[in-house]
Amino acid sequence: DISECVKEWEDLIVDYKRLEAINKDYATKLEEVGELQASCLKELNHQRYRMSIMTNALKRMEKKATKDERVANLEKEIMKRKAMLHEIEATLPKQNSLYLKVILGNVNVSILNKNDKFKYKDEYEKFKLILSAIAFVLAIANLYIDFRPLQLILIFLLVWYYCTLTIRESILKVNGSRIKGWWRLHHFVSTVVAGILLIWPQNESWEEFKHTFMWFIAYISVVQYMQFRYQSGVLYRLKALGARHNMDITIEGFHSWMWRGLSYLLPFLFGGYIFQLYIAYTLYHLSYNPDATWQVAALSMSFLLLGIGNTVTTFLVIPQKLNE
Amino acid sequence: DISECVKEWEDLIVDYKRLEAINKDYATKLEEVGELQASCLKELNHQRYRMSIMTNALKRMEKKATKDERVANLEKEIMKRKAMLHEIEATLPKQNSLYLKVILGNVNVSILNKNDKFKYKDEYEKFKLILSAIAFVLAIANLYIDFRPLQLILIFLLVWYYCTLTIRESILKVNGSRIKGWWRLHHFVSTVVAGILLIWPQNESWEEFKHTFMWFIAYISVVQYMQFRYQSGVLYRLKALGARHNMDITIEGFHSWMWRGLSYLLPFLFGGYIFQLYIAYTLYHLSYNPDATWQVAALSMSFLLLGIGNTVTTFLVIPQKLNE
Ligand SMILES: CC(C)(COP(=O)(O)OP(=O)(O)OC[C@H]1O[C@@H](n2cnc3c(N)ncnc32)[C@H](O)[C@@H]1OP(=O)(O)O)[C@@H](O)C(=O)NCCC(=O)NCCS
Ligand SMILES: CC(C)(COP(=O)(O)OP(=O)(O)OC[C@H]1O[C@@H](n2cnc3c(N)ncnc32)[C@H](O)[C@@H]1OP(=O)(O)O)[C@@H](O)C(=O)NCCC(=O)NCCS
Repeated sequence: DISECVKEWEDLIVDYKRLEAINKDYATKLEEVGELQASCLKELNHQRYRMSIMTNALKRMEKKATKDERVANLEKEIMKRKAMLHEIEATLPKQNSLYLKVILGNVNVSILNKNDKFKYKDEYEKFKLILSAIAFVLAIANLYIDFRPLQLILIFLLVWYYCTLTIRESILKVNGSRIKGWWRLHHFVSTVVAGILLIWPQNESWEEFKHTFMWFIAYISVVQYMQFRYQSGVLYRLKALGARHNMDITIEGFHSWMWRGLSYLLPFLFGGYIFQLYIAYTLYHLSYNPDATWQVAALSMSFLLLGIGNTVTTFLVIPQKLNE
Repeated sequence: DISECVKEWEDLIVDYKRLEAINKDYATKLEEVGELQASCLKELNHQRYRMSIMTNALKRMEKKATKDERVANLEKEIMKRKAMLHEIEATLPKQNSLYLKVILGNVNVSILNKNDKFKYKDEYEKFKLILSAIAFVLAIANLYIDFRPLQLILIFLLVWYYCTLTIRESILKVNGSRIKGWWRLHHFVSTVVAGILLIWPQNESWEEFKHTFMWFIAYISVVQYMQFRYQSGVLYRLKALGARHNMDITIEGFHSWMWRGLSYLLPFLFGGYIFQLYIAYTLYHLSYNPDATWQVAALSMSFLLLGIGNTVTTFLVIPQKLNE
């Protein structure tokens, strides 16, 4: 009844006062955090600026003077400091890259917390896995059913998928991932490839090519599954190493696991690159067909680019990993 | 020389200690902010939950009992409180919508500061303006030059543009914009329309249709420019009202300005909707051409949907604005 309601309302007013107080406190703290961020950034830039001047001076000394232990010592100290500054930087929000600015506008996508960073990466790997599974099913269906809309669905999916990957990878990059430029470029080129496939008119050349293409999609979806196994293994092990809870995993243990994973994965990756080069070659031949449109030659060049770029990048990763 | 360098390094160590202290303070405060956010949210939900129970009870009372002033009073209080809770909510981060979760993953895109929200919206309007200008130039070029790649560039641009709009509008929505669902759906449908145009084979029907389409793009680009003038006028005036610095702008002043802007804009908007319906009609006729593929009929239906949806939504906005 009404007087009970009035009574309850009064209780709620008390609660509201509390909420207001918390919210005010929150607003103040949030502002303080913003100010602290700004001064951290200022100090960080100051450190980097001074250190770059010192590094130059030390290099000049190294060249002309006899060896001085103090020089070598300072250089080591600077190296260490750089690593520490990097750690601090990871706790600060970062500016978006140009690509993200154009797509998303100037909204802050920094993840400031290690655990959330991990979760975000994990989610990215799962996203790739799920979409590879869908692509696999569609590719197999297209091998058995000759139905243009089904082909178009797969190709549209690929355009959207690769485009989304480029966005997510740019977000990962802002949050400090060391993903190589080539893999991001790879996904840009793949978006373009899928776009060109979309507008390839349904002529004789397409009829000849489509089976090869569907096999290729099926193949890289399977490889993607293997990559997922490897990447999420790396991710969880690195997390465990960072947290140092799980003492079973040592750096050596991690490295031996990584090499086992890699030696299992690499043959399939190179199989994929050979497949890409084979596709480039097939398309090159098709481009001499009388009905071949410009799409054929453009795709041939794109696949050549992808095949070479992937091979070179993966070859460069191996010695780099051996040095670690 | 080296001893100078060593001296400088020692100075830098002092600075670094300061940076470390600030960063530590920052990390603590950041954690506190997170905790305060969580308790704000809890209290907020508590308020909402209790108020919904009370509202129900009050409604029941209203139905059966004679009028009681206290009931009406409480209802008014609840209304006011709801507005205040809304204000508080705007200072808290919000969960991403499903669409954003799929595209971006679970990264936080909340903008917590009024000024930044304003800037983000302003940037969104400018983004639309710039891309409309580019689309205008391409559409006019396509009217004079009959070159397939030029057509494809425009259509690819449209796919990308509308897709980007849906992302940015979802971010705006997360940040509390009251943009109507239809406008967002409109941009989804436009993405699909552009996608279908991309795969429309270059046949007789396309040759007949393309001029109408290019004129349409040129027309809506001009309308977009007028919308920009109106929307950025509204935005800056609302900001001035909120800031209450500029006493020239009163609520009445704002309303009279808004109505002047609208009465200038609306005829051109309805011109655009009639154009869309005309295109739907043209495509419907073309779909009886012997060479017409499924794209023609699909586009006809899409344009019909766009024309009707836009007309209805804009018609509904007017009485709503009269009631304000
Ligand atoms: C060769 C390979 C297995 C090495 O993986 P790795 O051990 O993670 O390599 P790195 O140590 O150089 O990785 C650095 C970072 O880049 C990321 N990364 C590496 N390759 C990536 C790829 N292809 N896509 C996305 N991210 C990648 C890693 O996850 C890591 O991220 P982090 O800094 O956030 O932890 C990996 O690059 C790979 O799978 N490449 C093949 C991709 C390919 O060819 N696809 C097409 C098949 S036809
Ligand atoms: C009719 C119209 C001018 C009214 O604009 P308005 O006065 O801003 O309308 P509202 O008050 O309902 O706006 C509510 C919110 O939605 C936004 N909004 C309204 N129409 C929008 C649109 N078409 N696109 C994006 N955002 C829109 C407003 O900016 C406002 O945002 P905010 O909450 O962040 O401040 C506007 O809706 C419009 O321009 N519609 C025409 C769009 C169109 O038909 N385009 C195709 C042309 S053929």
